[in-house]
Amino acid sequence: MTALDSPAAVHRSEHVKPDGRRLWLYGRTPHDRPLLADIEPVPPPTPHRRWHPLRREWVTYAPARQTRTFKPPPEYCPLCPTLPGGFATEIPFDGFEVAVFENRFPAFHGAAPPPPEGLPVPTAAARGACEVLVYTGAHQGSLAGLDADRRALLVSVWADRYRALLARGDVAFVLPFENRGEEVGVTLHHPHGQIYAFPDVPPVQAQAVAAFREGPVLARLVERMGGAYTVAEGETMVAFVPPFARFPYEVWIAPRRPVPGPWAFSDAETTEFGRLLGEVVARYDGLFDRPFPYILSLHAAPKGEEARFHFHAQFYPPLRTADRLKYLAGVEQAAGSFLVDALPEEKAAELRAVRLPEGFR
Amino acid sequence: MTALDSPAAVHRSEHVKPDGRRLWLYGRTPHDRPLLADIEPVPPPTPHRRWHPLRREWVTYAPARQTRTFKPPPEYCPLCPTLPGGFATEIPFDGFEVAVFENRFPAFHGAAPPPPEGLPVPTAAARGACEVLVYTGAHQGSLAGLDADRRALLVSVWADRYRALLARGDVAFVLPFENRGEEVGVTLHHPHGQIYAFPDVPPVQAQAVAAFREGPVLARLVERMGGAYTVAEGETMVAFVPPFARFPYEVWIAPRRPVPGPWAFSDAETTEFGRLLGEVVARYDGLFDRPFPYILSLHAAPKGEEARFHFHAQFYPPLRTADRLKYLAGVEQAAGSFLVDALPEEKAAELRAVRLPEGFR
Repeated sequence: MTALDSPAAVHRSEHVKPDGRRLWLYGRTPHDRPLLADIEPVPPPTPHRRWHPLRREWVTYAPARQTRTFKPPPEYCPLCPTLPGGFATEIPFDGFEVAVFENRFPAFHGAAPPPPEGLPVPTAAARGACEVLVYTGAHQGSLAGLDADRRALLVSVWADRYRALLARGDVAFVLPFENRGEEVGVTLHHPHGQIYAFPDVPPVQAQAVAAFREGPVLARLVERMGGAYTVAEGETMVAFVPPFARFPYEVWIAPRRPVPGPWAFSDAETTEFGRLLGEVVARYDGLFDRPFPYILSLHAAPKGEEARFHFHAQFYPPLRTADRLKYLAGVEQAAGSFLVDALPEEKAAELRAVRLPEGFR
Repeated sequence: MTALDSPAAVHRSEHVKPDGRRLWLYGRTPHDRPLLADIEPVPPPTPHRRWHPLRREWVTYAPARQTRTFKPPPEYCPLCPTLPGGFATEIPFDGFEVAVFENRFPAFHGAAPPPPEGLPVPTAAARGACEVLVYTGAHQGSLAGLDADRRALLVSVWADRYRALLARGDVAFVLPFENRGEEVGVTLHHPHGQIYAFPDVPPVQAQAVAAFREGPVLARLVERMGGAYTVAEGETMVAFVPPFARFPYEVWIAPRRPVPGPWAFSDAETTEFGRLLGEVVARYDGLFDRPFPYILSLHAAPKGEEARFHFHAQFYPPLRTADRLKYLAGVEQAAGSFLVDALPEEKAAELRAVRLPEGFR
């Protein structure tokens, strides 16, 4: 058990499951619940990677994922606390604040086997890690519904996972993300995110690395952008619809100074990042008065790029109206070029105009 | 009216709509139907582009598209022939073989206005063209259901559109594609495709250009791949699940020799490409005994890359089982890195095993 360096105390304890997968419990108070029944072991994962010679990127194959959990009824939620005498979930304790565990169906794994031989394209071992991050023991909820301190704790947990994963020799880039809503394929509704630790710098981040090597493009944007794009702001952070949004309701959150990642946040940045995450989700949910689907991703520096990379979060919501999706069809998928039928400055004004729930902070 | 150079006669005639949009009618016989009521004029389009400084790509804004036609009832299909005294469709004739017309809601346009000024990122005029290609006057159908000669005619029409669009000074790359099925956002069910003529080489094709500059990667793949990936083949063309497929049922069709695009096809290649397109769709439809959704795109050489670029078609189907979608979620969208839970060689075997409809050719 460790108390980590953070605005308020963060305690971490580790548990190893029968199949060797690790679980970390994070909290404001030390974890002291007794161990209950552990989940059944799963066979070791066997993902591998193949090279796409025309897109010049790796594609990762993880056939074991075909059998992954698909929308279980709430009483069989694998992310809930385990109840004494009840169904064994991924967390064998009757309560927790925040939990992180190694994914049962990982696409990347520290002990991934050598890739198959004799294929007509280059192959590679799918080294790295996939973790699941459970925001709360409560089955219902969202980033908007968590209290301010829990959101700050979550930011500290991300910072700790970044530190631990980037310290590994087989990891080049770490991507925390959250898929929310059936529209983006979510199969488990318990509030949670995931963390993928890549063995390489993936295509999107390779472009960002090249951009930041040319100059402080994001700091410059935040400085010059003006209020038309702002959705919410604090002293150290700003949430905005980027002037080049690819999704109608795309929102970014960025610290005003070019910090490489949450591990380098000041106390004020930790708290404000948590608050703005909650506020953006609250504005989204208020927009059409329904839980708003999105993909949230955190973009921190790949290993070695800490001096130039400017951390930020990106929300990609698939809705273009209350009941119409933005599809990624021919042009987006075959050319990688986005078409948008809404102007970012108009969507920012819509999001600013949403009334936050009574008592939101 | 022109008879184009092609295995069988191809006739083309041009009609200009009241709003200046052009319509071309293609056929094996000269078009000789009388002009009926023309569709009402639409205001000139005003798309523009903004630069995404982190992904380093252009994003195209076309706000007029918000009002585009959304799943009209069949009797108001804008792609059907116009009936005398009836509703005016996009094609003011009571019959046609293949029709191409300039899109009512284009994202790219030859007369796109100068972009807005004073934005915090670079902007550009959205020059280029967007066309709609109607495969048949019949409201129901698919590439699988068209007869062999109509498919060959379609290939000749693509060749002609490539020639016409690539001859323009404001076009660098031409992308014909077809979105099929509600799963990929299709709003009009009449069998049709689209053609986007880009003012630049978009991100996906920029990678392919770089790959082909390093060597004949696709010719090498086709030569070495072996039968495990083959779905269907002919003397001059092969259809296969690429060993690096990003979608479980992804299929490519490539000529065995490195032809830059359909405008350079031999007669045999024109006929076989048409046949394999139909055969792939027939196998897809037979797989789960339902119309199979997909995005089909044609990848020909951008202007200036004709000596190295190897033309091919790519099908991206969003299904991973008969009723489950493959979602593009956090990892795909935020990192540009694909995860797949099925092996290409297994999916190729499934598609090979589908029985084609009686009499298919």
